[in-house]
Amino acid sequence: MKIALAQLNYHIGNFEANTAKIIDAINQAKAKGTDLVVFSELCICGYPSRDFLEFKEFIGLCEEAAQKVAAACTEIACIIGIPTFNNKPQGKELNNSAYFIADGKVQAVVNKALLPNYDVFDEYRYFEPETEFKCIDFKGHRIALTICEDLWNTIENPLYITRPMDKLIEEKPDVMINIAASPFAYTHDEERIGILKDNTTRYNLPLFYVNHVGAHTELIFDGGSLVFDNAGNTVDELPYFEEKIAYYTLNDDSSITPEQPVTTMIERQSNIEQIYLAVKLGIKDYFTKSGFSRAILGLSGGIDSAVVCALAAEALGPENVMAVMLPSRFSTDHSIKDAQDLVDNLGCKSELIAIKSITEAFETALSPQFQNLPFNIAEENIQARSRAVLLMAMSNKFGYILLNTSNKSEAAVGYGTLYGDMCGGISVLGDVYKSQVFQLARYINREREIIPENTIVKPPSAELRPDQKDSDSLPDYDILDKILKEYVEHRCSSTEIIKMGYEEALVKRVIRLVNISEHKRYQTPPILRVSPKAFGMGRRMPLVGKYLS
Amino acid sequence: MKIALAQLNYHIGNFEANTAKIIDAINQAKAKGTDLVVFSELCICGYPSRDFLEFKEFIGLCEEAAQKVAAACTEIACIIGIPTFNNKPQGKELNNSAYFIADGKVQAVVNKALLPNYDVFDEYRYFEPETEFKCIDFKGHRIALTICEDLWNTIENPLYITRPMDKLIEEKPDVMINIAASPFAYTHDEERIGILKDNTTRYNLPLFYVNHVGAHTELIFDGGSLVFDNAGNTVDELPYFEEKIAYYTLNDDSSITPEQPVTTMIERQSNIEQIYLAVKLGIKDYFTKSGFSRAILGLSGGIDSAVVCALAAEALGPENVMAVMLPSRFSTDHSIKDAQDLVDNLGCKSELIAIKSITEAFETALSPQFQNLPFNIAEENIQARSRAVLLMAMSNKFGYILLNTSNKSEAAVGYGTLYGDMCGGISVLGDVYKSQVFQLARYINREREIIPENTIVKPPSAELRPDQKDSDSLPDYDILDKILKEYVEHRCSSTEIIKMGYEEALVKRVIRLVNISEHKRYQTPPILRVSPKAFGMGRRMPLVGKYLS
Repeated sequence: MKIALAQLNYHIGNFEANTAKIIDAINQAKAKGTDLVVFSELCICGYPSRDFLEFKEFIGLCEEAAQKVAAACTEIACIIGIPTFNNKPQGKELNNSAYFIADGKVQAVVNKALLPNYDVFDEYRYFEPETEFKCIDFKGHRIALTICEDLWNTIENPLYITRPMDKLIEEKPDVMINIAASPFAYTHDEERIGILKDNTTRYNLPLFYVNHVGAHTELIFDGGSLVFDNAGNTVDELPYFEEKIAYYTLNDDSSITPEQPVTTMIERQSNIEQIYLAVKLGIKDYFTKSGFSRAILGLSGGIDSAVVCALAAEALGPENVMAVMLPSRFSTDHSIKDAQDLVDNLGCKSELIAIKSITEAFETALSPQFQNLPFNIAEENIQARSRAVLLMAMSNKFGYILLNTSNKSEAAVGYGTLYGDMCGGISVLGDVYKSQVFQLARYINREREIIPENTIVKPPSAELRPDQKDSDSLPDYDILDKILKEYVEHRCSSTEIIKMGYEEALVKRVIRLVNISEHKRYQTPPILRVSPKAFGMGRRMPLVGKYLS
Repeated sequence: MKIALAQLNYHIGNFEANTAKIIDAINQAKAKGTDLVVFSELCICGYPSRDFLEFKEFIGLCEEAAQKVAAACTEIACIIGIPTFNNKPQGKELNNSAYFIADGKVQAVVNKALLPNYDVFDEYRYFEPETEFKCIDFKGHRIALTICEDLWNTIENPLYITRPMDKLIEEKPDVMINIAASPFAYTHDEERIGILKDNTTRYNLPLFYVNHVGAHTELIFDGGSLVFDNAGNTVDELPYFEEKIAYYTLNDDSSITPEQPVTTMIERQSNIEQIYLAVKLGIKDYFTKSGFSRAILGLSGGIDSAVVCALAAEALGPENVMAVMLPSRFSTDHSIKDAQDLVDNLGCKSELIAIKSITEAFETALSPQFQNLPFNIAEENIQARSRAVLLMAMSNKFGYILLNTSNKSEAAVGYGTLYGDMCGGISVLGDVYKSQVFQLARYINREREIIPENTIVKPPSAELRPDQKDSDSLPDYDILDKILKEYVEHRCSSTEIIKMGYEEALVKRVIRLVNISEHKRYQTPPILRVSPKAFGMGRRMPLVGKYLS
């Protein structure tokens, strides 16, 4: 049997585009004499479709699209992912399903049993878990078809009380197929390979695994679809962050012959390279899928905005990036020069708008109220917010989308101005720690100096008061980022983190800063997720809770 | 057996305060010779504790607090709600539990079986559902103890595949106790009474039901705890939006004798009265629980900010409310007068800061970029954002929290400026349609004119350009609000709404406006929830999805 894996980039709710893409892949595969082409989880509507799934009309449109796909399935079979109405009288309204389609119609329906409902996942919000399991016979093979999480109930940490393959194996299948929508985190590729491999050896079966590729606002899907033989050897690993259709022959003895040169990873991509590719795709798809092409950002001369500017230029083309320099009376000369050097290196567009007259207008207007109270955070924030008003005015006038340039370290400790530098349509670096931003800058400069060396080596500063440095109010970023990782990603308590050897007062201060900034993060833009625990939809904290504050 | 119901207001994660409050109620009940005092669901930590529950330390602190409560339970028994570690090897890490405590220690643990995971609820994110059920024997009675949703698997619309009472009834209990955290919506009290009453008649058992009261950021719990006899007659209905401990004798024949005059509702509160009380409590608890006392808001002379100002003065005291008038060159004279009249009626503090010099400074700074392009949304937004910068500067300088004054109708169609009038710590009216805002104004004026009549009767205007009226760009609010309700709350498609008799072009335009504003609502403050479907945590829409846009 000849099998094709279609690792494609879908657009949530864009039935016309998704259906056309699926049918095109079916036709390509048909032309190559393929028996079965496999698409990823919920490919019909895109993943995650979130509360679109609560509209009955949406589910109807999914079914309509599936019928169009079915009509194209003559002389070839396919597997697609689709939400369907739960036909049992009890339970949630929907199932997360796979259709096995052949001879122009749906021949079998398989429903997902294990529904991830943690971190960024909300599947039990919509779907009823399946409790009955059956293999699919096709062309002399018996296929154990499962959906994503169905293979993830590990022996070491069983999050669910059932394991679908334990049931399916009783029917003696000779191959496993898993369709997935498994989002990227820079730790996730190795974890994914490990768990899938465990399944192949546990059940002594080969496995075809198809993942989504493409970004949907904050969630980035990295592709990297996989084929294993029944001994757990990797037969193929599809590329990351790009579309690909790959072909294999599943022989009668269950061995697998690839039909094209396979991707063999001599060494895995570094975390920073993965983050670079993920964020670039995240920016590109955010713009493409929301129908915009041009970005704007404030360029301070510092490293965060420089890295965002370079990434945006890579993702959208420098001609689509407008960098605005917005110096205040506290901006240093080298800031403007560093920003201008970056603009020159990238070839993007730029403007310079000084904010002094604006902040003075605010301070004059507020002088009856502020009297002679000393300059403090209020005046600092006026600067950051004046910049946001200018950038948003440019955005409104010319149709740019504002890119947010905050990094994860400062978003964590609240070192940013709400409605100021925390504005934007999408946060590019909000899941990238400051120490990783430096690494990203070096990676971007791997072939030639794009980000000025001075931007990388000078001490970080918000430049909102004279001679301000980040280090005046924050610990060294290398230490800060480690504490943040333990607290935010690993949910360790202060006691546990102190036991690891960090200074008690520092740990308590950092944790307190994270907690008192929840209200700020609540109102920030969606953040491109690259770590196992990003701020945003995957981290849901009470705002008026006392614990941890 | 003498039973007390403790309907109390908890603070999420404030173990010290919650434990003290619970022990105080136990001591009060003990002094009255009570046998059993019943607290609400997850009272130990507050509800919803959200991702605090992912910290092992947090669960440990819950257990510590429960041990303190147990130590106070001598010569009296109590039932408390608490998250506990799931002691089975598989499934989620936690259970949503009830402790039955007597003689100073935990005598029985009951776990919740039906875990709401829709709208604002995420319980399956944390908890494993229970599958085994057992009654509790105490003082000659056999108690069927369940937790909130456990009684909500209705016959008509069974959302779950099990029904805990169907199992418990086999053990022949003579009374049901249900501990709950059931949030307010203005439609919810009657639904709740209906469903609980159905349970009493179906199982022919009396029921004691204890609900939370108090607000936690967006979620408001209304109390209204209930006692029914086994024929479904209401024995008592505790007050709404306030704390109360009430006492009853459960007689040997399972009849119930109240120990105090019962609250009998001659007629139910109107929706508007409920919303008024809910929002007032929402404001009060948001400030109290986050440790702030003083609010600031922009007062335009329009009805939204007037209603918010009056509600804030009621909730926090007029001396804690700072109303700032921020006229632009397009503000009309009557706007200032109407705003000033309101300030005088309420006795709150006020300031007047004209924004003309500020918007001119922005326009001058942007003149090289904007050249002679016509005045449009960019300049309108500069006004709204200049106001936000001023209000936030006052907030930063003096420690006020900014109240957002957007209503649900304009939040729905995106008729507001992101980082402008959409700013704030909490949105007071974001779940109140404009047509309901008018009703709220009338309700606030029920005894004397607080909100100036002119503010209520004049045509709504954003006053961002000459002679602007809301009706220039939006349909009549009465029609708009009905379409929004069908779309947002009932998830009807445009086809379905058009079939109801609304004009096709209008329906399509309204729905399109809602969809293209998702990115704005993503960044707005938490919204006090008063309807069955509010914007915010209970409505999770894709931002780059094509369907519906």
